[in-house]
Amino acid sequence: MKFTINRVSFINELNNVLRAISSKTTIPILTGIKIVVEDNQVVLTGSNADITIQTTLSVTNGETALTIEEPGAIVLPARFFSEIVKKLPDKEVTIEIRDGFQAKISSGNAEFKINGQDANNYPHLPEIENAATIAVPADLLRDVIEQTRIAVSKQESRPILTGIHVKFADNQLTAVATDSHRLAQRKVALPTGDQTYDVVIPGNSMTELARMIADVKDDVQVQIAENQVLFQFGNALFYSRLLEGMYPETSRLIPETADTTIELDAGKFLAAIDRASLLSHQGHNNVVKLTIDPDNNVANISGDSADVGNVEENISADKIEGAKLEISFNPDYMSDALKSFGQTTVLISFTSPLRPFTLVPTEDQENFVQLITPVRTF
Amino acid sequence: MKFTINRVSFINELNNVLRAISSKTTIPILTGIKIVVEDNQVVLTGSNADITIQTTLSVTNGETALTIEEPGAIVLPARFFSEIVKKLPDKEVTIEIRDGFQAKISSGNAEFKINGQDANNYPHLPEIENAATIAVPADLLRDVIEQTRIAVSKQESRPILTGIHVKFADNQLTAVATDSHRLAQRKVALPTGDQTYDVVIPGNSMTELARMIADVKDDVQVQIAENQVLFQFGNALFYSRLLEGMYPETSRLIPETADTTIELDAGKFLAAIDRASLLSHQGHNNVVKLTIDPDNNVANISGDSADVGNVEENISADKIEGAKLEISFNPDYMSDALKSFGQTTVLISFTSPLRPFTLVPTEDQENFVQLITPVRTF
Repeated sequence: MKFTINRVSFINELNNVLRAISSKTTIPILTGIKIVVEDNQVVLTGSNADITIQTTLSVTNGETALTIEEPGAIVLPARFFSEIVKKLPDKEVTIEIRDGFQAKISSGNAEFKINGQDANNYPHLPEIENAATIAVPADLLRDVIEQTRIAVSKQESRPILTGIHVKFADNQLTAVATDSHRLAQRKVALPTGDQTYDVVIPGNSMTELARMIADVKDDVQVQIAENQVLFQFGNALFYSRLLEGMYPETSRLIPETADTTIELDAGKFLAAIDRASLLSHQGHNNVVKLTIDPDNNVANISGDSADVGNVEENISADKIEGAKLEISFNPDYMSDALKSFGQTTVLISFTSPLRPFTLVPTEDQENFVQLITPVRTF
Repeated sequence: MKFTINRVSFINELNNVLRAISSKTTIPILTGIKIVVEDNQVVLTGSNADITIQTTLSVTNGETALTIEEPGAIVLPARFFSEIVKKLPDKEVTIEIRDGFQAKISSGNAEFKINGQDANNYPHLPEIENAATIAVPADLLRDVIEQTRIAVSKQESRPILTGIHVKFADNQLTAVATDSHRLAQRKVALPTGDQTYDVVIPGNSMTELARMIADVKDDVQVQIAENQVLFQFGNALFYSRLLEGMYPETSRLIPETADTTIELDAGKFLAAIDRASLLSHQGHNNVVKLTIDPDNNVANISGDSADVGNVEENISADKIEGAKLEISFNPDYMSDALKSFGQTTVLISFTSPLRPFTLVPTEDQENFVQLITPVRTF
């Protein structure tokens, strides 16, 4: 096996594959990166229990400056190998296996020899056969993930809640996540053809996917099989396992009526919440109180912590309507939710101090909702 | 006590004083910042066991937009208070103590009340009486610190070696640090007048001082008393305690002859050392080998680690002279030393594989030297 490649192109693809590789794994060979050199391309594969990423560098892509002298395959220690490639002196790097499993890595005057493993011992890729493909624009997919992943549960006590519930049906993509204290739901109109899928994808997989498609401009092709989902874009394949089990029914959790509503700028409210949480983070229970007085057109947030002090701030709202209300909540949940809206106006709808309340963008109230359960303080 | 001040100016000075404040302290009040409001200035003080920093905000400085309504004094929890000030919404902030030790902090619509402590319980500043002053240009002082602090010992087994040995005498400043594996020495011509001082200043104090004077353009005024040194610049006072005890005699450690010398670009050699240390860091003993063959005008660094692999690289040197040599050393020491030279050519002088070797800038071989003790590998 021997090939020479532009170092920057190679590093870009190494970085992508490294997203799937963990140094903490129970399967030692998965700390390695698999390099398969074929007649006209080099295929890199990295994997952990949940995610497998494969990218292809082709001789037909001029930027790679790839020249292949001899096909072959090897598994090299992933972090160490990529650190070496990153620090090499020259514009190009040559990687060669002569005999056994030792790789010679040379660039300029520098020459490393590092020990690898037999590529035959590397696990096989998941198989996704004949599954139909749904195309999702990359920026839309990224938004859907960013807006829902904040509500994914971090606790393993109910494993199904560590995933994002994704449905493709009737020309609509619906994504929902909830940790049972809050919920995020996003809907997107999308040609789904005849396909109907209802799956739960691990939150961590989706987070890595969102990072990896940050600069992708085209569509992402989605294929779903029994226990795997494959996202395909550019020269990359991104596999994730699916979570097993039924995701709880969430649609009935979202209240349909409101007794008190407030419309305000998400960014300004976020700044006020961040200030109030400075104080709530010092105390035992991380809670701030929102007081809404529609008659006097006043909304106010406050927090106190016996040992440390207290905070109070009048909120500038665009519109305050309905009944008087005092409600307490975890400011971190509110902060996460507000961040997911970006710079826009949000409508917050309350029913009572102990019932969940919702946030929606004022301009598109149907397709995106963040729900937060308040905290009982009395 | 009540004053109003431009928030950005106030934050700048808070950040300076925070350098001295540690959340890990055996004296609880030292987790606080002391704020003393006088008729025409606000004085901020922070301290730990080693360092005390005091800065003054004056009404005569227009940038501070300082208006004082009522003098007074308070000690407020330093980190928490400065986080609040940083997140406040308005351009200005007002701080007020009405009764007791609770401070009201207001800015725009936001109002915090936080509990403080009696300023009378805050320790007094060190006293430095009538000591003569030596002026050192800030950029020179910063260089001296940056070039010597890398060799300061991190081990408490010989406390005196955790400091930098600073001498002012005969119109020269000399700074030396050694952890007994390496040594850094810098000399600077400087008008010292009649003064002669010989002190050891904690390395951590010097590191903080270097950071704090990063943007200072003028001279730093240095005053030395029995167990304290005071650095004065701009509107700041920076006190550090001195280390007690005799610093070891170091001048005889620096070899005066050389059997092998090599001249090379510090930056390029640093890159090669960093590459080699990728491998040495994987092994049990962190060592790389330098082989110098003046007859063939070749120098080469190499490293190996049984389980992982090996590395080899020919070094491009400007000049190689003297006897053949093979020498092994800790690449981290070499990397630190090379970084302290910046972009310049260095002359490295060796006597034998087991004797310390030196690095000096080719252009100024008298005033700056880094010394490294090799590692015995046979």
